[in-house]
Amino acid sequence: MRIALDVMGGDRGPEVILEGGYLAASEISDEVVLVGNQEIIEEFLAKNPLPNLSVYPAEEVIQMDEEPVSAVRRKKNSSMVKCFRLLKEKKVEAVVTAGNTGAAVASASIFLRKIKGVKRPTLAILLPTASDFTLLLDAGACVDAGEEELLQFGIIGSIYIRKMMEKENPKVGLLNIGEERTKGNRVVKSAYPLFEKSNLNFVGNIEGRDIFRGKADVVVCDGFVGNIVLKCSEGVAESMAMYIKEYLRKSAISREIEGSLEKVLGHFFQRVNYSNYGGAILLGVKGYCIITHGASPAEGIKNSILVACREVKKGINKEIEKEFVS
Amino acid sequence: MRIALDVMGGDRGPEVILEGGYLAASEISDEVVLVGNQEIIEEFLAKNPLPNLSVYPAEEVIQMDEEPVSAVRRKKNSSMVKCFRLLKEKKVEAVVTAGNTGAAVASASIFLRKIKGVKRPTLAILLPTASDFTLLLDAGACVDAGEEELLQFGIIGSIYIRKMMEKENPKVGLLNIGEERTKGNRVVKSAYPLFEKSNLNFVGNIEGRDIFRGKADVVVCDGFVGNIVLKCSEGVAESMAMYIKEYLRKSAISREIEGSLEKVLGHFFQRVNYSNYGGAILLGVKGYCIITHGASPAEGIKNSILVACREVKKGINKEIEKEFVS
Repeated sequence: MRIALDVMGGDRGPEVILEGGYLAASEISDEVVLVGNQEIIEEFLAKNPLPNLSVYPAEEVIQMDEEPVSAVRRKKNSSMVKCFRLLKEKKVEAVVTAGNTGAAVASASIFLRKIKGVKRPTLAILLPTASDFTLLLDAGACVDAGEEELLQFGIIGSIYIRKMMEKENPKVGLLNIGEERTKGNRVVKSAYPLFEKSNLNFVGNIEGRDIFRGKADVVVCDGFVGNIVLKCSEGVAESMAMYIKEYLRKSAISREIEGSLEKVLGHFFQRVNYSNYGGAILLGVKGYCIITHGASPAEGIKNSILVACREVKKGINKEIEKEFVS
Repeated sequence: MRIALDVMGGDRGPEVILEGGYLAASEISDEVVLVGNQEIIEEFLAKNPLPNLSVYPAEEVIQMDEEPVSAVRRKKNSSMVKCFRLLKEKKVEAVVTAGNTGAAVASASIFLRKIKGVKRPTLAILLPTASDFTLLLDAGACVDAGEEELLQFGIIGSIYIRKMMEKENPKVGLLNIGEERTKGNRVVKSAYPLFEKSNLNFVGNIEGRDIFRGKADVVVCDGFVGNIVLKCSEGVAESMAMYIKEYLRKSAISREIEGSLEKVLGHFFQRVNYSNYGGAILLGVKGYCIITHGASPAEGIKNSILVACREVKKGINKEIEKEFVS
């Protein structure tokens, strides 16, 4: 199997991505194709050679803050676009990028076909709960989703958890502002009976505070809501950490306490950092694609590559195809 | 001035609410009308008499988990409904309740008229940022808001911050999934130019993680999104606290460290607890109403009463009326 790694995406520069590619290639026998500036990659490979690391040159870079669709159309020689071309031409089975999320979703829409029967591609993210994980989708690929799109997200998410987490009959919930079936906006209220009639293990509505309590294995929402939930959760955790540090700085506490608390906070952010679980997973298109957090360390990049490999081996897309054809 | 306090709402029982009413009445000269079970209230007043505390009997109670609209229609003698009747009949200027939020919003819709020109009443919540506050609205009163409702929320929020926080020209932002004007769902994209053309100090789109960074004084969103943001933020903060405590419990750390950390976390939750800033503020109707968190301690109830008094004295509703008539 071959995985294309977008070496030029992300906030931390190509070295970190290359390091992540190297770590992954050391653990697997599959080939990692490093897509990006030839000189930088070859210099790295000269010092860190591995038989299953190869280079595929790309001259341009799509920046993190570029307008996605126009960047993808304009920068045909960018590392991101070249990754998706390789995927389209079946020269690789999966793409891993830490680059501009919008550009990755746009590239997937432009270069890859949707799996037959799938209305809209979706971004899924694994969030840690007290004792397990919840897959939240859609996380921003599909805004203004209708009730049928929501149902499809539920089906796709359920397949993902069943195959990847080996969990039979995953619990699927609808993100809503109350538990009662009469609650919510128009789309969610129309979606409720569709979920009830489906073959999913539908557990009803899930409130915002219950996402992290593990009431469902799959939490379904519109991409506008999902993206805001994700970023807002990041914001709350950040402010809480800042508050705690600031408070400790002002109080007359010992270095020891400060040190152990910094450690605990570090652990917490490791636990909630979705890059550690593979990043954002693009589902519903022909080809596998993982979009890692832009600030991912090498370890996060490695994890994304390993998750991509597992997705291919588990044949997630074939399962989705089967479901939607039948 | 007279404020009706719903003694029977909330999760902690009437004693806590009565205590909060007592604390408020000790600080102000305005009258606090205690609405609820006569026996309980009179027993409390016998032990804690104050000239500006009075009783108004109500036999029924709307439970926290009751379906709002039917509960309000059925329980005509409930403390909540009686509070709103007093407000409707202008026997009080404001209502403070820690009861069922949906039932309070429904009561307001049923018993109070909207301020002329206001399309939909809205719930606003003050959230703490690093150094100040942000008013988030709508927080759940108005789902499926259109672009014109969003603009009105911006106008109402701006008036509130200007009058209550004495901040000239408050910055107003639209909650969105990216900063660019082309981002978002249909409604938010249509709302953007309306905000630009308005007289508001519009600072553009605000992302989820920026709510708590104080980029805007007023953050506008649909009630479905706002309610999920609020509950999700609570959930994240809770899980983070749980995680930290659990981690410390497992590590071999001293009682001293554990103790000081518990204290820091306690302070943090005090800071983010919106009950401390008056609870959820219902705006756009003729009459003032504050819905405190169901789990509010007496101090939170007191604060809500004080905020309600300030709202009346500042004449927030007159300002809203002026804005929408002109």
